[in-house]
Order: sequence, then structure tokens, then C-alpha cells
Amino acid sequence: MLNFDYKNPTRIVFGKGQVTNLGSIIKENRGTRVLLHFGGGSIKKNGVYDAVKKSLVKAKLEVFELGGVQPNPRLSLVRQGIKLVRDKKIDFILAVGGGSVIDSAKGIGVGVPYSGDVWDFYIDKAKPSVSLPVGTVLTLPAAGSESSFSSVLTNDDGHFKRFLDNDLIYPVFSILDPAYTFSLPPYQTACGASDMLVHVTERYFTRTQNVELIDRLSESVIKTIIHNAPIALADPKNYEARAQIMWSGAIAHNNLLSTGRVGDWSSHMIEHELSAINDVAHGAGLAVLVPNWMKYVYKQDVKRFVQFAVRVFGVDNNFFNPEETALKGIAALRNFFTSIGMPSTLSAIGIKEAQFQGIAKKTKKFDPKKETVGNFQPLAPKDIVEILKLAK
Amino acid sequence: MLNFDYKNPTRIVFGKGQVTNLGSIIKENRGTRVLLHFGGGSIKKNGVYDAVKKSLVKAKLEVFELGGVQPNPRLSLVRQGIKLVRDKKIDFILAVGGGSVIDSAKGIGVGVPYSGDVWDFYIDKAKPSVSLPVGTVLTLPAAGSESSFSSVLTNDDGHFKRFLDNDLIYPVFSILDPAYTFSLPPYQTACGASDMLVHVTERYFTRTQNVELIDRLSESVIKTIIHNAPIALADPKNYEARAQIMWSGAIAHNNLLSTGRVGDWSSHMIEHELSAINDVAHGAGLAVLVPNWMKYVYKQDVKRFVQFAVRVFGVDNNFFNPEETALKGIAALRNFFTSIGMPSTLSAIGIKEAQFQGIAKKTKKFDPKKETVGNFQPLAPKDIVEILKLAK
Repeated sequence: MLNFDYKNPTRIVFGKGQVTNLGSIIKENRGTRVLLHFGGGSIKKNGVYDAVKKSLVKAKLEVFELGGVQPNPRLSLVRQGIKLVRDKKIDFILAVGGGSVIDSAKGIGVGVPYSGDVWDFYIDKAKPSVSLPVGTVLTLPAAGSESSFSSVLTNDDGHFKRFLDNDLIYPVFSILDPAYTFSLPPYQTACGASDMLVHVTERYFTRTQNVELIDRLSESVIKTIIHNAPIALADPKNYEARAQIMWSGAIAHNNLLSTGRVGDWSSHMIEHELSAINDVAHGAGLAVLVPNWMKYVYKQDVKRFVQFAVRVFGVDNNFFNPEETALKGIAALRNFFTSIGMPSTLSAIGIKEAQFQGIAKKTKKFDPKKETVGNFQPLAPKDIVEILKLAK
Repeated sequence: MLNFDYKNPTRIVFGKGQVTNLGSIIKENRGTRVLLHFGGGSIKKNGVYDAVKKSLVKAKLEVFELGGVQPNPRLSLVRQGIKLVRDKKIDFILAVGGGSVIDSAKGIGVGVPYSGDVWDFYIDKAKPSVSLPVGTVLTLPAAGSESSFSSVLTNDDGHFKRFLDNDLIYPVFSILDPAYTFSLPPYQTACGASDMLVHVTERYFTRTQNVELIDRLSESVIKTIIHNAPIALADPKNYEARAQIMWSGAIAHNNLLSTGRVGDWSSHMIEHELSAINDVAHGAGLAVLVPNWMKYVYKQDVKRFVQFAVRVFGVDNNFFNPEETALKGIAALRNFFTSIGMPSTLSAIGIKEAQFQGIAKKTKKFDPKKETVGNFQPLAPKDIVEILKLAK
């Protein structure tokens, strides 16, 4: 187990009807002039927008709106938001939506007090030193951005998707009402479940030894997602299943499961390049990649893959052939993704073999001095191409 | 699953050598004049005191000392600490020790800015509105006070042990160095493991339905404790086992495992009265009580006890006789406590049958309007006497 320094300051306000407390919570956080940031307008159809507005108005907050956040949120809209916040002297940013809206809000939060271009933070050209407070009302459990210190933006010009990790961008609060997810289409529900599940596997598959507690906690989150996603798909208004998924999605990515270990994150890095090419849903791209990444790297630590297979999927352990057990676990994960409607090949998400070299080259390294991505097995571009071939 | 509002603001600084950062962390928290609060002096023997002092001196902090905290920390010393802090204009309280020292420090923290007697907060006569910041260097993983909002004090006069739960008393940081627990005697190590394990069972045994995620997380923590406590007992300087136990103890009581459910806490309430009588170690008292509490209440929800038996102890489920499975799980917990050297009877910890009525009467109710304690099965004084009889 490695040393760590962990704190998650986000307040989680969870459950049915909690949005009625929204206005007063923003006031507790000294917000007076609020940017209401949202996406394509689904919140206007499902009643969330009205409920949010009602609570803000009741608390006598001044509200300014900026909608139109797309999946894989665009840098251009963040820049537009920064300008609006400065012009209107807005002091609190409220994201109502999923990870894209929240990530966009976080970009605006750090961009406003910065004299340079906000993209600097995403290409490691500068580090933020302060942020406007961001609160969220989550409508799509997936990215975990509601209690994470991460934001991912896409630069419209170059099809580059880049991330910022910084303690300053933890939301000050997030309201999680499972009923707000009843109207999610099946595909988005499944993509969300895949995304949060992979947030856990990225941390779980580590070369750090003696990490029993977090291993077990991680398996718990994965099992809960695997159990409840099919229930929510079959019965979209099942509050209890939606609640388990929603709380799992936050815990999957609030960094508790990172404590004391080195994560991998190569699948995320590769997937960001898939999404940047043609707006593949992040969870769908991950569902294609991860089982193939596993097949490519499992020999680095077969025992860890055996543990995963036995504990998460209840695979009957072949004690005399651990590789068989490990591979059965990987197959079980593939089957789970397929069972909830996730694609299993790159061709199914419109990625062609001719693009593999380009994706491999563009995939961002964690450490600019390194030629590889990921930690469980550091991947050179040629390894990425091999994984993409397995996934084609 | 119930609605909840959760935030844990305590920063956990975990691992070998982290105390070297202590002084600078206190300065980040604007401490300049520090009360160094500790217990009976074991920290002077095992090097912790010297390491702490070195870091404080290096950061040029002014240090005032108050040692002498006993197990089941006394109100009188808290009052003395409050006076010292006021006299010396101390602005930061540093607890170096286990739960007793931390609880005592929290009492001082809320007592200093209050014009009345600090005991008011523990007998529900008043609520704190502000606290001095408290930081901790943990040396005994058990009570979970290092990242909890609880403090338990004992009134010297009347043998009353009472608790305060309040968001204001989360420590601002806690340094958890597993190497600091190498010198713990076996009995304290085992009492600590028992205490933290029961912090989880008090939350786990709930009548709230649809709480799968937190059930699974709770089972993970319990399994980790059960696996690692015997390792630490056999090999006290096993860093990795000590680390798993230490992080488990914090997570067991940081309230993550309370989210969305109603806990029970009757065993804690009853045990507080045992400790108040003759300074029984809290973990030992709990190890005596909890299996007997379980035997008395399990019929309220046999399925939950079956889940506990199967998932935590791997009991072979008798699908046709769930009660048998449930009872095997309770017996397995009893065996675990016994295996790590915990007592199994009240007579072994010096509590006599003649005292049962008095203990039952004194046991604090959560709700003063109620005649019962606990939630899984609300216990009247006569029920408490029956549980004590099972435990005699």
C-alpha cells in the first residue's frame, strides 16, 4: 500500500425531492448570481429545469442561463461561459446535467479568474490557483464528475480531448436525485453504467501490492453496478435500482478507490481519442476497449485477474489453471457489457482500422517525458494498435 | 434507501513518515499556537512524541502540552484543557493518540468558544455553534474518531459516559502512520479491531431496505479487519496488515457506511455503561455484547443475518434452514472475537448480574421521548437485561 493524501470536500445531497433545498444550499455557499449551465434541453422536458428554477427563484437568486453543452463538451462553449460570467459578475456556477455539463462548468469555474486561455490548464501549460464555486444537480450518473476533481474538454479545432485533474474543481455540493434518471434512454443508462464500472477497473488493475481493503470496496461497487443496471434497463422507474447506480457512480470516481495505489487509466486515454474522432459515447467506447485491454495485459498479474473473476463474477476457480479463470472473468465482463446493449467492436462504433495508427499516436501520455500510457502495463503506440486490432 | 446529506471534510494523510508534514499542515490550517494533547505517555516511549515535536518545532509553532488523557476520557481533563487553551490563547488543538485523546481534544475544541459548561453538549442541553480546529496523529486505530463527527466523554462524578455527534467536530486532518501502531500491545490491537468491526455492524444491521451498495462496502471492511487482525497479532511489525487495519478503522466510522440507512447503535449504548462502571476497554465490552445482541434480535430479519453469514464468513448456506445459517454467522463472529483474545462473558470483564438492572436503566436513549434504545429491534430496559443475561 502506498502513502496517500486524501480528502473529498464535495457534499452529497442524495434522494427524492432534494432539489427543493438547492436554492438555500447555494446561499449557504455565498452564491447570489448564478450561472445555470445545462445541455441540449432534455431537462426542460423531464421537469428538472422547472424544479431547479423554482428553488432558485424561491431563494431569490439572480439566474443567468447558458445551455447547449454537447456530449464531449466543447472548449468554445466554455470560453463563451467564461465571458458571460465575467460580464454579468456571476459568483456561482450551477451545472444541471451529466458529466459533460459538469465538466464544462468546472472549465468555466477555473477559467474565469485566469487571465490566460482556459485551455492552458488542459494542456499542462498552466495550473489553476483558484476556481469559482461549482455546484451540480446530476441527471446522468456516469462520469462521476459530481464528486471528482476531473474535467474533460474537447478542443473543437483539433479533435483533441484533454483532461484537467485538480483539487480546486471538486464541486462544493452535488444533488443526486435518482428519480431524475427515470427518463434516461436505455442506451445512455447502459453507457453510464459502463463508464462508472470502468472508473473502478482503471483503479482496480494496479501493480501496487497489499491493497486488500480498496480491492474489496472496488469489487463491491462493480457488483452493485452489475446487479442494478439490468434492473434499471428493464424497469426504468425503479427508484431503488436507480439509487444504487447513482451512488455507485459517485463513489466509483470520488478517489476513495484510488487511495494507496497507482491506477492504470490507459483505456480512458485511448477512449478519449475515439470520442474525439466521432463523438462516440464514452461508456460505449470503454465497453469496446476494456475487455480487449484486459486480454492484452492480464499476464502481467494473472492472480489479480483471477481475484476479479472469482470475486466479481463468481467464476468457479480452476486452481490448476489460473489463466482459464482469469480469461473467464474477462469474458464475463464482455458478456455483461453486451447484455446491457453495449457495442463490442470498434467497427460497431464507426472506427476503422485505417485510423488505428493515428489514434495510437494521439493518445495522451500521463507523463510527457514517457513514451507509454498506463501503468498496469505501460503501453507504447504499437501496443495500443494491437489492442485496437483485438477490438476491431 | 433513505435520503441523506453526506460530507466528510477530514483530510487523511496516510502512510509511513507522514508526520514530517505535520507542522506545515497545521500552518496551512492557520494554527500558530498549538495544544499538544496526549495520553499516558506511551508516545514518549515509542518515538511518536519526538517526531511530532520535531515537525512542530521545524514549522516554528508555539507548543503547549496537556497529557494524561485516560481511556474513557474524563470530563475533568477536558475542562482543564479548555482553561489552558483560553489562558494561553491557543488556536489549534493537536491530538496525538487514540480515540480517547481525540475525543478529549474535540471536547476542548467545542468547549473553548462556549460560555457555558462543555458537558451541556453531551447531555443535549446545548448545541455547539463553532469549534477550534482539531487535527490528529493517530496511534491506536479503533474508535474511528480520526475522521468521525463523534466524541465520547465520561463524567468522573457520576460514571456517566455520553456522546456528542456534530459536523463541527470532524478533525481538519488526521495523520495515519501504520508504523506508529507497531508497538501496540496485542490486547489493544484486538480491542481496536473489535471496536472498528462493530462500528460497521451497528450500521449494517438495519431495517432499511434496498441498501445493497453500502451492505457490500460494509462487508468489505469487516472482511478486511477479520483477515488482517490475526496477522497483526502474530506479526506486530507487519506494515501492510497494520495499514489495512488502520484505513479500515477510519472508513468504518467516517459515516460513508451510514448513508441511506438507519443504524442500530444499541450495543454501543449498552457498552458505554459497562465502560463507565469499571473502565472496561470499549472493544472488549462490544465483543462480549454484540454476538449476544445478535442472538436476541436476529429474528427481526433473518435474511440480513444470512447475508452476513454467507458473505462475511463464507458460511455454507442452508437454503432450507435460514435460521441455521444465520446462527452460524453469529457463532463465526463470536469465534473471531475469541480467536483474537477478546472476552466472551460479562463475568470475564468484571460485570456482575446484580448490576444488570442498573445498566439497563442507565443506558442512554437516542430519543429522550422514547423508552427504547436501538433501531434494528428497539430495546426496552427488560430487553437489555435479557441480552446481558445471555452474555453473563
